[in-house]
Amino acid sequence: MPQEIRAWGTTAKDRPLGPLTIARRDPGPRDVAIEIEHCGVCHSDIHQARDEWGGSLYPMVPGHEIVGRVTALGSEVRRFSIGQRVGVGCIVASCRHCGPCDMGLEQHCDAGAALTYNGTEMDRKTPTFGGYSRHVVVDEHFVLRVAESLDPAAAAPLLCAGITTYAPLRDHGVTKGHRVGVVGLGGLGHMGVKLARSLGAEVVVLSTSTTKEADARRLGAHDFVVTKDPAAMKRARGLDLVLDTVSATHDYAPYLALLRPRGTMVLVGAPTAPAPLHAFSLIGGNKRLAGSMIGGMAQTQEMLDHCAAHGIVSDIERIAIDQINDAYERVLRSDVRYRFVIDMASLA
Amino acid sequence: MPQEIRAWGTTAKDRPLGPLTIARRDPGPRDVAIEIEHCGVCHSDIHQARDEWGGSLYPMVPGHEIVGRVTALGSEVRRFSIGQRVGVGCIVASCRHCGPCDMGLEQHCDAGAALTYNGTEMDRKTPTFGGYSRHVVVDEHFVLRVAESLDPAAAAPLLCAGITTYAPLRDHGVTKGHRVGVVGLGGLGHMGVKLARSLGAEVVVLSTSTTKEADARRLGAHDFVVTKDPAAMKRARGLDLVLDTVSATHDYAPYLALLRPRGTMVLVGAPTAPAPLHAFSLIGGNKRLAGSMIGGMAQTQEMLDHCAAHGIVSDIERIAIDQINDAYERVLRSDVRYRFVIDMASLA
Repeated sequence: MPQEIRAWGTTAKDRPLGPLTIARRDPGPRDVAIEIEHCGVCHSDIHQARDEWGGSLYPMVPGHEIVGRVTALGSEVRRFSIGQRVGVGCIVASCRHCGPCDMGLEQHCDAGAALTYNGTEMDRKTPTFGGYSRHVVVDEHFVLRVAESLDPAAAAPLLCAGITTYAPLRDHGVTKGHRVGVVGLGGLGHMGVKLARSLGAEVVVLSTSTTKEADARRLGAHDFVVTKDPAAMKRARGLDLVLDTVSATHDYAPYLALLRPRGTMVLVGAPTAPAPLHAFSLIGGNKRLAGSMIGGMAQTQEMLDHCAAHGIVSDIERIAIDQINDAYERVLRSDVRYRFVIDMASLA
Repeated sequence: MPQEIRAWGTTAKDRPLGPLTIARRDPGPRDVAIEIEHCGVCHSDIHQARDEWGGSLYPMVPGHEIVGRVTALGSEVRRFSIGQRVGVGCIVASCRHCGPCDMGLEQHCDAGAALTYNGTEMDRKTPTFGGYSRHVVVDEHFVLRVAESLDPAAAAPLLCAGITTYAPLRDHGVTKGHRVGVVGLGGLGHMGVKLARSLGAEVVVLSTSTTKEADARRLGAHDFVVTKDPAAMKRARGLDLVLDTVSATHDYAPYLALLRPRGTMVLVGAPTAPAPLHAFSLIGGNKRLAGSMIGGMAQTQEMLDHCAAHGIVSDIERIAIDQINDAYERVLRSDVRYRFVIDMASLA
């Protein structure tokens, strides 16, 4: 019998978030029931709550950076135990038998992965509700182990911001001695700096202004380049990889020019408007422009294990659920270093 | 003492090509002197002769698809012998000690590689003159072995069109069982079809019209898709690599949509105007858009050896040098299947 549980969300694109009651299914044989302790606030929560990407489903309970503890297990679940700390990220189901699923890229499932919220289960009918709530029930394949050694609140953003930046660094072979440029120092960028450094790279933060230099260096950047400074940009040349986390439309050419031959620039921010691209920015130097979207389940677990081994979490500001509407406004002003995380005990 | 030799070229951007006399240096210790038998006609010869890219140097002798026989060797040359059939491609010198040169990417030399024509030697003073001439003298590092088993006229375009399409297929790991799409069936595209097939790929030609289907299949394509046909485009989905040889500005999105997750589209044509690119075309499916410019010397030799092993040459139309101005007009009308090659004996 589905459980009625407390949540926060919205019923229309122009309404603030407030208390809602939603239903969660009873755990099936392969399900894990989780009491949510913390949920991170991603910029995409705002885009979707406000229907800025179109097609939003209401009522909506946002939240896809979920950390909590296991409260119940389906009869066939062997990978988890009651009381274990676990996480749930951006997806909660996929077809499990298509090409992308077989490649470990469940997020690119041919059938369309089930998003953690603002989507439907694979039956394409049952709505999904996210982590701004006290409980969630998820198929074990989409549940991740989170080490007890990590602060669970600060670990929550790893489930989206962490894997979004870790996946391209690993997929494009970043390793010791590589030079990595990080464009944009927000929720994604600050994780990119920490993760690139932990993989042994020399990290250069590329920023339009000098205001974030101290923070960039504190986070682990070896160098900080103001992109309007031609001499500094010249100094930055020869990068193996550029991780571009900016979601406003911008010109890629100045960053492509910093790559060594065969270097790769990866887009993880998703500007809504297209940017003009000169083919010669890629042909000169045999360069590559790639995109990357979150990560598959095996790679997300690898990222969490890597973060546990290196003591890496997000820099966060904790909030109670009733501060969420104010937090959204502050995210829009980039007034957060670097991620809000909701203490879900505040929902009681 | 520099030799005065016969050539064809132009003295200004608005003049037709005609006879010229140019000087070639005496072979130095590491030089190879070559009697040119054949020279291919590349579309870029026209762009440069007419200064369409800016910065053209006159007088200009175009031609960078050169095949001939060794007539003299410098005292230190051990890799070649008198009478051997050899080739020269798009570059004739580079610094030999920068990062790109060390990576075997001499074409991306930090100092700027010396182009075979419309450029200067590494002294940045001595002009270079291309293959529309009877003789050339080139450092042995930039001279390639061409198998006697290949028709030397039809082998000439391998030096530019061949390596331009071979390099990205190899760099992005095309192998047996891969599905490769080729966009544009001209001088580059027809080589792309032959080379992709020879590497074991299933080849799909993507074309705006049906007119080239028979030719595409004759060249080795397994499938032919008219890009305006939505059902056919759907059938083509799941490509491992798209080789885009089109040099007119066009939208990349329909081709990116055909790639499997983590697939790569490579641009080898160089549109002069930028094309709008939606980041989500890359982020959805973790896709890659890459550029590729000719190839380094080791890879060019590998390509020539591969072509000899597989009996691959270009489809050509032979012309005498005095047909060159008409040939240029026909190239501009795409009225050539698929490459003009000048018989340089006609210069006598």
